[in-house]
Amino acid sequence: MSDTLARLEAVIAERRRADPSASYVAKLAARGRAKIAQKLGEEAVETVIAAMQGDPAGLTGEAADLLFHLLVLLGDAGVPLADVLAELDRREGVSGLTEKAARPKE
Amino acid sequence: MSDTLARLEAVIAERRRADPSASYVAKLAARGRAKIAQKLGEEAVETVIAAMQGDPAGLTGEAADLLFHLLVLLGDAGVPLADVLAELDRREGVSGLTEKAARPKE
Amino acid sequence: MSDTLARLEAVIAERRRADPSASYVAKLAARGRAKIAQKLGEEAVETVIAAMQGDPAGLTGEAADLLFHLLVLLGDAGVPLADVLAELDRREGVSGLTEKAARPKE
Amino acid sequence: MSDTLARLEAVIAERRRADPSASYVAKLAARGRAKIAQKLGEEAVETVIAAMQGDPAGLTGEAADLLFHLLVLLGDAGVPLADVLAELDRREGVSGLTEKAARPKE
Repeated sequence: MSDTLARLEAVIAERRRADPSASYVAKLAARGRAKIAQKLGEEAVETVIAAMQGDPAGLTGEAADLLFHLLVLLGDAGVPLADVLAELDRREGVSGLTEKAARPKE
Repeated sequence: MSDTLARLEAVIAERRRADPSASYVAKLAARGRAKIAQKLGEEAVETVIAAMQGDPAGLTGEAADLLFHLLVLLGDAGVPLADVLAELDRREGVSGLTEKAARPKE
Repeated sequence: MSDTLARLEAVIAERRRADPSASYVAKLAARGRAKIAQKLGEEAVETVIAAMQGDPAGLTGEAADLLFHLLVLLGDAGVPLADVLAELDRREGVSGLTEKAARPKE
Repeated sequence: MSDTLARLEAVIAERRRADPSASYVAKLAARGRAKIAQKLGEEAVETVIAAMQGDPAGLTGEAADLLFHLLVLLGDAGVPLADVLAELDRREGVSGLTEKAARPKE
């Protein structure tokens, strides 16, 4: 289980080079960055709504969709998932409110 | 690296029970589901914008924020990350456009 | 022009009672609050992206979609557009940073 | 009431030229397009959540915030509200599912 995202990242990287008529990822990649970002935003909206509905099964599915499209977006931008996880690890060096305060944007 | 999210999930579960004045997670949890969902939505918006700006460092940080708040939301809803990853694994049994078509909501 | 939104609000209220197979609004209303809210969220994401792309024509169309679905959502919740405009008028009694500070949520 | 948005659009255009230390709009405009778009996205998320909570007063306030920031974004992009309303009027020439089908993006 722990390697699901790393494996999925590799699958997505491979599918980006596939025939857009045969692969959802290739088709989405062909439509460009804005379309991929739009899909990520839409899945986040659906995740928010499933969470508000108190629907665990629905939330599980939407969270999976959100993670999937986040990996597609990172792949399109050339950002390795490892960099994102390293950033999360780095933040764990500090904790609680301190950690939050340390984020540049907040 | 591969265990970052599982470890973070455990840290978040622990912090939920901490003093809200000393922990960002406890403070957010105390504000309730709607506030956590709101934060997830906001981080998704910031991820979309960083992606559109073509800012890899910014996207890395926003994706980390998004994953962090997704874990907080899943924890609040009692959905284990393992369930979400299992759903992603399950979908990988099918591929490309077929896989997409198989999602209930689409 | 100034009455476009009021007129559209009335048209939407009428269409809600139409046959879902013949009206987009009736169809959306039949799917319920969550689906309407989801559409609003999606149109907002598209508005954000069009704005980031610096595409005035695209932004015009997305802003129209956003306003349209906001009216559908308000109608579903029984909130008259007049109440929202009255709230904006009320806020205009105060100005600039002061006005912002006066909003309960910020 | 019907002129609230047109009047607010004019007020926002004027405030954009004010001192950022004295005006919320000037301060937001000084931070740039991405920040304004981010605020619009955040207000949309809050509107979605208020709608899901079945909170009419909350929804009224969030819808007002959403309209306010939509006007700030349109102003930043140089898109007159009149163009957006004209687009809505134009669409009303067609109706129901037909109208929806006529939108390029769907």
